Amino acid sequence: MDLFDKLKTNLGPLGKHSELSEGYFMFPKLEGEIAPRMQFKGKEVLTWSLNNYLGLANHPEIREADAAAAAKWGAAYPMGARMMSGQTDLHEQLERELAEFVAKESAYLLNYGYQGIMSVIDALLDRKDVVVYDAECHACIIDALRMHLGKRYVFPHNDIENCEKQLQRATKLAEEQGGGILLITEGVFGMTGDQGKIAEIVALKKKYNFRLLVDDAHGFGTMGKTGAGTGEEQGVQKEIDLYFSTFAKSMASIGAFIAGDAPVIHYLKYNMRSQIFAKSLPMLLVEGALKRLELLRTRPELKDNLWKVVNALKSGLIAKGFSIGNSNSPVTPVVLNGTVGEAATLSKDLRETYNIFCSVVIYPVVPKGMIILRLIPTAVHTLEDVEETITAFEAIKNKLSSGYYKQTELAMSFGE
Amino acid sequence: MDLFDKLKTNLGPLGKHSELSEGYFMFPKLEGEIAPRMQFKGKEVLTWSLNNYLGLANHPEIREADAAAAAKWGAAYPMGARMMSGQTDLHEQLERELAEFVAKESAYLLNYGYQGIMSVIDALLDRKDVVVYDAECHACIIDALRMHLGKRYVFPHNDIENCEKQLQRATKLAEEQGGGILLITEGVFGMTGDQGKIAEIVALKKKYNFRLLVDDAHGFGTMGKTGAGTGEEQGVQKEIDLYFSTFAKSMASIGAFIAGDAPVIHYLKYNMRSQIFAKSLPMLLVEGALKRLELLRTRPELKDNLWKVVNALKSGLIAKGFSIGNSNSPVTPVVLNGTVGEAATLSKDLRETYNIFCSVVIYPVVPKGMIILRLIPTAVHTLEDVEETITAFEAIKNKLSSGYYKQTELAMSFGE
Repeated sequence: MDLFDKLKTNLGPLGKHSELSEGYFMFPKLEGEIAPRMQFKGKEVLTWSLNNYLGLANHPEIREADAAAAAKWGAAYPMGARMMSGQTDLHEQLERELAEFVAKESAYLLNYGYQGIMSVIDALLDRKDVVVYDAECHACIIDALRMHLGKRYVFPHNDIENCEKQLQRATKLAEEQGGGILLITEGVFGMTGDQGKIAEIVALKKKYNFRLLVDDAHGFGTMGKTGAGTGEEQGVQKEIDLYFSTFAKSMASIGAFIAGDAPVIHYLKYNMRSQIFAKSLPMLLVEGALKRLELLRTRPELKDNLWKVVNALKSGLIAKGFSIGNSNSPVTPVVLNGTVGEAATLSKDLRETYNIFCSVVIYPVVPKGMIILRLIPTAVHTLEDVEETITAFEAIKNKLSSGYYKQTELAMSFGE
Repeated sequence: MDLFDKLKTNLGPLGKHSELSEGYFMFPKLEGEIAPRMQFKGKEVLTWSLNNYLGLANHPEIREADAAAAAKWGAAYPMGARMMSGQTDLHEQLERELAEFVAKESAYLLNYGYQGIMSVIDALLDRKDVVVYDAECHACIIDALRMHLGKRYVFPHNDIENCEKQLQRATKLAEEQGGGILLITEGVFGMTGDQGKIAEIVALKKKYNFRLLVDDAHGFGTMGKTGAGTGEEQGVQKEIDLYFSTFAKSMASIGAFIAGDAPVIHYLKYNMRSQIFAKSLPMLLVEGALKRLELLRTRPELKDNLWKVVNALKSGLIAKGFSIGNSNSPVTPVVLNGTVGEAATLSKDLRETYNIFCSVVIYPVVPKGMIILRLIPTAVHTLEDVEETITAFEAIKNKLSSGYYKQTELAMSFGE
């Protein structure tokens, strides 16, 4: 059989919708400066789909720092992997500042978050070690576990009773094999907006011997008194053994870091394959990250603004009878009931009639019959933006329950 | 057992040398503008260790383009994954231009090469499919294969007879299972500098049904009449089914792309996990890549200069009796015989006495008793740089054969 035959007939769960949705629901182009108001197909839309939590993407001081860094360093420097020829004083300085900010002894930069956390997990484990993890962990964590030759036990999302059961199984197996246990969860789950139950997991450390890795991509900069993340929020930052975040959300850039005790970070630095065998984070982005971290530390008003918008949006939605699931972070999912076809028509209506642009999550990501409109508030949204959105949401909710979205041609095409 | 116990006692094959070599042999800092002459520990060194093949890292037009792109876009835009909110006209334009340059129907950008090629391979395969690959493929390819649930057959580096044997085994198994075959090799092998035997592998297509993926990280921009890579060099670009290159070498940036027939690229676009679930390549780097590609196309003198330096270096080394292995690309390994301890002392001498900075490859990467000094010539080196280097290499070679490097304290510490 030709390897490519199957690809041409089966485009995959997302690809099969490509003909109808490319350029609209998938691969849409949001143009103009990153802000609450951007252009979509030549029209201004109120945008709730960018992880620009603190509004740093287009903050004048950040824009100035990015431009200055590029003028100074270009995009190439340093060349080569950190270990070979890609090391600089500023990489080390950023690591020290990140470690201090998240209250860890040491930190190491990663050239990209996805491959970075994969290599963190890969470097920590051998086949005797056992992994216990939350079922809704991000794709990068799942990909890392696919490389693991040893056993892994999954617990249903945030189900601590089941998590303990998996820890019991893991403990038995790890003892038999002479291995250790790594527990992986997230600070804030990016689809549903609920925090990982880190404090409850940490409490299990009294009964079980495991190490805890937390992917806090959505919590870094947004959660906790100082913005140090979900561990700080829940009062257990110290008990997180390895703290990971990408720069792709609050920091509005790319790259990532891992933080923890110095000997563990030292070990990782010498053993993460994607870091040993691939190029260092460009200096331009390192200088940009230093500036971003400075604003995280010194401008509490950014996080205050974010939460002002988050709270207004959430309480407004709840007051109007919307369900926002279990969200206790900025990520705000609005849960509706309807078919996949209705979801498509509804979100087209939301964009065309109400000029509101947000992500729509449908089956198979969520159960059949459920539609989630995911809103990402930021520090640069206004209370007027919130008002406008809630009004529009009321309108589409009414249309949805009246059956309005069942009747269009588009719904027919998407129906399955 | 505590998961971290083993990390503290066993720092791994590279980490175990960290105390002696950090900051010198591992994680050295090369400072100043990227150029043949840079600063190492406050002293100017002649540098042969950066993959800046065409000298674009510090080319004035590139520096200007990078600065202008950062001023225009910042480092954040676009935010989100390509599929969600990270799509732009310029990403598509760069894809069209890359496809045209490497003579393929279609191309797709990757946010980072390492995770990008992992997801290319991952998306193509299911457990019925069989992989045949060269033993010296880069770490990112090996990591991809670690995620593959089906069978893989490795052939010794560039051993075409054995490759055919593996294809026979693969064909039998794939037929039994109803799967396809993916053959993976590289255009130019980055450590040894020899080209993959692509033409000979392509010839096997007459007898076996497989698809060919070539990682041409070191060949893109350097090999072939137009710089389109090793497939062009060997006259078989058309028969490469999937052509991959990073932007981290000739292009002096980060990011990567995959090119091939349109339906296959369309499939990949909707099925590569690290691209669906992680941020789009920043616009700043997309604009920078467009400018770099323009120079690749329009300034043949860059590649001509590169090869002038490559040829002078290689013929000069050979004339002085050095072995450069099987290199038939710009990558020039100088093969010497000595212990790990001698390698350390020798390369320290090379840096301190002769002011020459290059990578040293030792056991376990190469067999015990072998030392490889790897030289990466670029378009911005001069013939005087080549002269100076050959003179220095003669001196250290004489010292090595006289036993000089056996006698120092450092050699003792590195001896194993």
